[in-house]
Amino acid sequence: MKDELFFNLHDVSQGIARTLAEGLETRVFPGENVMLSVVRIAPNTSGQVHAHAEEQWGVLLEGGGVRIQDGVEHDVRPGDFWRTPGGVPHGFRAGAEGALVLDIFSPPRDEYRRAGVGFGVSATAAS
Amino acid sequence: MKDELFFNLHDVSQGIARTLAEGLETRVFPGENVMLSVVRIAPNTSGQVHAHAEEQWGVLLEGGGVRIQDGVEHDVRPGDFWRTPGGVPHGFRAGAEGALVLDIFSPPRDEYRRAGVGFGVSATAAS
Repeated sequence: MKDELFFNLHDVSQGIARTLAEGLETRVFPGENVMLSVVRIAPNTSGQVHAHAEEQWGVLLEGGGVRIQDGVEHDVRPGDFWRTPGGVPHGFRAGAEGALVLDIFSPPRDEYRRAGVGFGVSATAAS
Repeated sequence: MKDELFFNLHDVSQGIARTLAEGLETRVFPGENVMLSVVRIAPNTSGQVHAHAEEQWGVLLEGGGVRIQDGVEHDVRPGDFWRTPGGVPHGFRAGAEGALVLDIFSPPRDEYRRAGVGFGVSATAAS
């Protein structure tokens, strides 16, 4: 069977389902060196600040909110994207519209290869 | 000096400028394990089919066209995304609206770390 290689950001039947926290639902797409995660964040919902060794990039596709990174809050709007080096604490607080965020991990995060709940790491306090 | 980590897809003053071909302009953002490339394709313009060892993902952000991959043509619309394993021949043909595509490479493509012209590899015929 051939691997599926074509997807759509809005098709919530695709990818591996993960509930990061209440109101933060993602669909995970693992590749060989890269893993994509399409995260749907409910209005006025926050993801806890956490950190992991893997490099991460994020792209705000829809909605708006605040990207918390390395203890600094950045207001973000659609089209904004950011790089989070490995080990840097980060989180997201969605505004009144909620947010759709594309997260990109490299290397892939092993703990996201199966359906489940949680960020896969202990949450750490923001500096 | 602290590395810049926040960007916007529509800010063409950011990133490393590269002209892939006439009508295909990109801005490249290298990370440690991942490189992002924001590609602007003029209406009715094609990028030659080519291949490289690095894994690639693409996200169609705006416009429309045809993703050519492994000899197969896929009509794509905004929100569609795809994985291109290393070594698989691929190209893109934009429709009448042109296209804005986010390409993701891992590992980063060394030949894209500096401003320049071209895809950085010899174009190969589609199968």
